Amino acid sequence: MKGIHHLGLAVEDLDAATSTYEQLFGAEVTGRGTQEEQGVQAVALQIGSGHVELLAPLGPDTPVGKFLARRGPGMHHVAYEVDDLPGELARLEAEGAELIDSAPRPGLFGMQVAFVHPGSAHGVLSELVARD
Amino acid sequence: MKGIHHLGLAVEDLDAATSTYEQLFGAEVTGRGTQEEQGVQAVALQIGSGHVELLAPLGPDTPVGKFLARRGPGMHHVAYEVDDLPGELARLEAEGAELIDSAPRPGLFGMQVAFVHPGSAHGVLSELVARD
Repeated sequence: MKGIHHLGLAVEDLDAATSTYEQLFGAEVTGRGTQEEQGVQAVALQIGSGHVELLAPLGPDTPVGKFLARRGPGMHHVAYEVDDLPGELARLEAEGAELIDSAPRPGLFGMQVAFVHPGSAHGVLSELVARD
Repeated sequence: MKGIHHLGLAVEDLDAATSTYEQLFGAEVTGRGTQEEQGVQAVALQIGSGHVELLAPLGPDTPVGKFLARRGPGMHHVAYEVDDLPGELARLEAEGAELIDSAPRPGLFGMQVAFVHPGSAHGVLSELVARD
């Protein structure tokens, strides 16, 4: 793992959350994106040297929509950057980790991504990302 | 804000979680600490260039103990590093943010810390940390 790539936050209102993060934490918007397949729209923020992704659902019957209904807004996932995503996924599977994505898939902002089930990481939905 | 200082995870079993993070994410233990006042013990992990704090409660009637009872293990807080902690707290208060700590207090691993209420940050318990 190269480090923490970003922290993903589930929010109800993307514009309101963006304003809050700009105002309180000096965040700068570095990207906006929508991923129809996952039913999510996102704003990428830079906070100093760190990165935060604000995620809002396109509808209630999406992964982030269900998360919000169950837990309310808050921290949704952490993403670690790797160089060799297929290799890391094979290693994790061999370690017995439960993968949500057994192969890399296109994520937001042109990254290749795969998620590890929170049940394998003490309740933390963990994403691996690699530059495409 | 200089960047994301660490991600804090609430766990039931510090040793089990440490092993999981070593095995799955290549984490290295960089510190261990206990803070009696907050009723928490912690393991500091380095994952590539990123930092994760595993937090276990000293008892059920502590902030992390109550968090675990209510939500189960998972992401607990995000910490941003700042240079001028009193200055940032004054600025946040002027912006109308609800502070849990209106003044810096000693945190884990020799840092000065203060928490911002999750109600002011779209459900995310946010910590500001500065080197002592």
